[in-house]
Amino acid sequence: MKSDIEISRDADLMHITELANNLGLKQEHCEPYGHYKAKVSLDSIEDLKDRPDGRMVLVTATTPTPFGEGKTVNTIAITMGLNTIGKNAISCIRQPSMGPVFGIKGGAAGGGYAQVVPMEDFNLHLTGDIHAISSAHNLGSAALDTRIFHEEREGYEAFEKRTGLKALRIDPKRITWRRVVDHNDRALRHITVGEQTPGTPKNMNGVPRTEGFDITVGSELMAILALATSLKDMRERFGKVIMAYNHDGEPVTAEDLQVAGSMAVIMKEALKPTLMQNLEGGASFVHAGPFANIAHGNSSIVADKIALKLGDYVVTEAGFGSDMGYEKYCNIKVRAGGKSPDVVAIVCSLRGLKSHSGDFQVVAGRDLDPGMIDPNLPALEKGVANLHFHINNVKKYGVPAVVTINRFPQDTQEELDWLMAKAKELGAEGVAISEGFIHGGEGCMNVAKEIDRVCNEKKAYFNYLYNVEDDISTKLNELATKGYGGNKVVISELAQKQIADLEAKGYGNLPVCMAKTQLSVSHDPALKGEPTDFDVPVREVRLSAGAGFVYALCGTIMTMPGLGSKPGYMKIDLDDDGNIMNLS
Amino acid sequence: MKSDIEISRDADLMHITELANNLGLKQEHCEPYGHYKAKVSLDSIEDLKDRPDGRMVLVTATTPTPFGEGKTVNTIAITMGLNTIGKNAISCIRQPSMGPVFGIKGGAAGGGYAQVVPMEDFNLHLTGDIHAISSAHNLGSAALDTRIFHEEREGYEAFEKRTGLKALRIDPKRITWRRVVDHNDRALRHITVGEQTPGTPKNMNGVPRTEGFDITVGSELMAILALATSLKDMRERFGKVIMAYNHDGEPVTAEDLQVAGSMAVIMKEALKPTLMQNLEGGASFVHAGPFANIAHGNSSIVADKIALKLGDYVVTEAGFGSDMGYEKYCNIKVRAGGKSPDVVAIVCSLRGLKSHSGDFQVVAGRDLDPGMIDPNLPALEKGVANLHFHINNVKKYGVPAVVTINRFPQDTQEELDWLMAKAKELGAEGVAISEGFIHGGEGCMNVAKEIDRVCNEKKAYFNYLYNVEDDISTKLNELATKGYGGNKVVISELAQKQIADLEAKGYGNLPVCMAKTQLSVSHDPALKGEPTDFDVPVREVRLSAGAGFVYALCGTIMTMPGLGSKPGYMKIDLDDDGNIMNLS
Repeated sequence: MKSDIEISRDADLMHITELANNLGLKQEHCEPYGHYKAKVSLDSIEDLKDRPDGRMVLVTATTPTPFGEGKTVNTIAITMGLNTIGKNAISCIRQPSMGPVFGIKGGAAGGGYAQVVPMEDFNLHLTGDIHAISSAHNLGSAALDTRIFHEEREGYEAFEKRTGLKALRIDPKRITWRRVVDHNDRALRHITVGEQTPGTPKNMNGVPRTEGFDITVGSELMAILALATSLKDMRERFGKVIMAYNHDGEPVTAEDLQVAGSMAVIMKEALKPTLMQNLEGGASFVHAGPFANIAHGNSSIVADKIALKLGDYVVTEAGFGSDMGYEKYCNIKVRAGGKSPDVVAIVCSLRGLKSHSGDFQVVAGRDLDPGMIDPNLPALEKGVANLHFHINNVKKYGVPAVVTINRFPQDTQEELDWLMAKAKELGAEGVAISEGFIHGGEGCMNVAKEIDRVCNEKKAYFNYLYNVEDDISTKLNELATKGYGGNKVVISELAQKQIADLEAKGYGNLPVCMAKTQLSVSHDPALKGEPTDFDVPVREVRLSAGAGFVYALCGTIMTMPGLGSKPGYMKIDLDDDGNIMNLS
Repeated sequence: MKSDIEISRDADLMHITELANNLGLKQEHCEPYGHYKAKVSLDSIEDLKDRPDGRMVLVTATTPTPFGEGKTVNTIAITMGLNTIGKNAISCIRQPSMGPVFGIKGGAAGGGYAQVVPMEDFNLHLTGDIHAISSAHNLGSAALDTRIFHEEREGYEAFEKRTGLKALRIDPKRITWRRVVDHNDRALRHITVGEQTPGTPKNMNGVPRTEGFDITVGSELMAILALATSLKDMRERFGKVIMAYNHDGEPVTAEDLQVAGSMAVIMKEALKPTLMQNLEGGASFVHAGPFANIAHGNSSIVADKIALKLGDYVVTEAGFGSDMGYEKYCNIKVRAGGKSPDVVAIVCSLRGLKSHSGDFQVVAGRDLDPGMIDPNLPALEKGVANLHFHINNVKKYGVPAVVTINRFPQDTQEELDWLMAKAKELGAEGVAISEGFIHGGEGCMNVAKEIDRVCNEKKAYFNYLYNVEDDISTKLNELATKGYGGNKVVISELAQKQIADLEAKGYGNLPVCMAKTQLSVSHDPALKGEPTDFDVPVREVRLSAGAGFVYALCGTIMTMPGLGSKPGYMKIDLDDDGNIMNLS
């Protein structure tokens, strides 16, 4: 089989303006970026407002191995499959960070015959949104350090007198706004800025302080991009972003620094979703890509809004397993204005479920244990508990579940048949096998038919998991128990203090975003399958005031990845004709 | 008069594909980025190869005040003026950094009725080239620190054994590749990276070392972008970039780190120049913007190449006065493959020349002394020596000079007449007054006619200032004497050692790029007018092996600006309709 980039390059692509035209978008609302990408103006929403909304298909997965279960592939394949059976379906997916692209992971545009194309454009720059986030975010940082520099050098009173500005009296030890860069760069995790340049006077470079860089997609601005419902909403949220605290412990926002407007100016174009196409000519919006732990892990509300007006079905992917991206979709994104799902596809694989038997060690970068690839019904029977959790979890929100089995070449029909029957027994409203990777839409027709059948037969009665008006501890406990099946939440002393402080400042009625491992339903990556009898420890609670949620840390979340000793970039190059080699 | 952004917004713009079509570009070679910008493929050069090249008009200026003499305005106005008199003229200008846009300077797209539009697009992101440079550059940095991390942690031998890679044995104290960000951010000038994150094991974040960020446009990759003649050439130059030295003092290149290919992949699209339009519908290529001190200060060779095939005249702007950007155009850019100028326009103003009398202190951010604005022939008579220098300097390279007087509202006809006559007397082949700022092309017709007349009457016989095969000290001395009119170059002991080392390593026959102040013809900003009897001290000599020049530091060159206490970003915002306010 050809490599992903070869398949992408050999594809016969439609000009993006033609695709936009076919969808019913006006030319003035479609700004091409090259021949195969276009930004779509938010004015199109107003223009299309009389059309009915399509159905929302959310694609989630069982608890993933480090290899992934093929969720993006199947998001695209399901879209293609729905188009193959005569529906009008559109994908809404996230834009990947360039860090992992050059690190280890390679492309994130799907794979095989279920890709968004051109995959190089998808994986590199796209239409510049992540660059815009880096720029807007780091302008905020420059504004912060500049203000500290001027106020501290002059003294607060003299500063106020000279400039006519109110001194913000920022505490350099309580800065919450780290800088960002869209690379895997561990040397920037912990740094000291504002040091004296040798040979220059002291204090010329500001006030020395510890600092660090996160990868750009971890920026709160990314979460805001995904949750904003309009340019005005995005601008207002930027103003609320807390960058530091002053010497009295009061928050200092981007509005206080008078930089929120410029940050919004830098991100004005970034709020327009990017339209691309899949290998079969179907439409795909690519927009935003927040973390699924410290943020909510879903693509943008504005992309969904436009797509829902243009398609019968919108197929969107949520990060990690259903305890992560799907939970956050329901409890955070829907509350911010997203459409609740009409049906959920749970992607799983024989090998993935076998890993949940607990019999195997799965390590990124090493080959899979043959016991997970070869027929092994006992392991499958043990591991299927994880699927049970996710089917139940999806249905908790009143949404029907269709289990989508991502078939791999060595999978036997016997085990597949067993899993199909078992999925039904565990409560799935539908189940089918996907061969989208090798056969595209045709390989995913059966899944598409199941999704369409379930949608027609079973209406979703969506409900949230918790009452957002409850206090923060109660909401955390609801997630720990109803959300993950644990006994209770255990909140550290530090977190209790932080919660009291947040509630006193009026942030108590925000949704909570649990920053926990994706490798287990629980907080502990070692607990496979469907763990029971565990407590969920919350170490720390933080605030994303602009994005509009409180997030709770259940462990250490890496916000700046590192690079291995043989990173992906070593092989990526241009060939003699200027084509990109070895991107996937 | 309306503000720049109002004029830009009220303009009736042509769709960029229509403009490209009118120019004779094939649709497949023109990739629109929105409705008013397009990237032009380098394949168009091959396609147009049978067309003759147009004439190259280089726009330079007298030694600038901190306010600038209106060089960009007149580059665009001359283009418009040439079009007004029936020629087919195209501008090739530099892309501005976003740092100064949000710092103090505002937009850089020209001004008044001589602008490239839409000015917001010009000043923000454009088509993402500078973002691509930041990304490619910082991937190089991540590769460098990653390699040090892995080699030092494991030990060279164990590293080689495990990975099969040759240990590079990089000296963390001899790293020449600083990181970059496209903001004015003084806190990043001098930092320590790779520090331990509290609560994590030691050495998890690499080897702590001092580091710093430059503003992105100061990256060697920017100089390469401007000098590369093809994608292949850019890729090869990236490979030669020196990022550090090993413990034996041998250079470690991007090729050694196996990251040059990925850097080129990230910048593949950036090598395509961006086509925009001016307020009168003329074409303007915007591409690259290297510093004019540590680099050569001119827009790209590839943009020129395309424009020369499409226009009778290409009008391009070189950074700062003729001792800076023009000198480097001639001695560096032409040697790399740029077309030598057919005529040079020297932009000057009454106020600018009066400042060279030495009678006034000009400080950025403060109002000009009325003695420079009001009639003041004695000051003008003293200051005109600076124009004398620049006319002579231009002609030294065998190129005719047309003095372009940028008229300001209070300028008297008497002083203008005096200057016109004087310019001729000083050897200018042509002279005319420009009112491009308030009248666009019509206001610059007289300059356009002079340029056209001089081009028809006087062929340029271009010659370089120095022989590139001479040794580095000789070349530096040629610049100090023939280039600036000084007595001789004085090379510090440190620089002498560096020169010996560079020559021993085979870099002796590269052109030299003088990194000196732009505020004087000499190395000393206090020496106004046409200074004589001075030595040019060279403090340090460095190498840009990828860009292909040696650069000599005559003073401290700021590679990371700071922000004032009331930066431009404080006023820039979105209005209720989503329009950008206060950008200029």
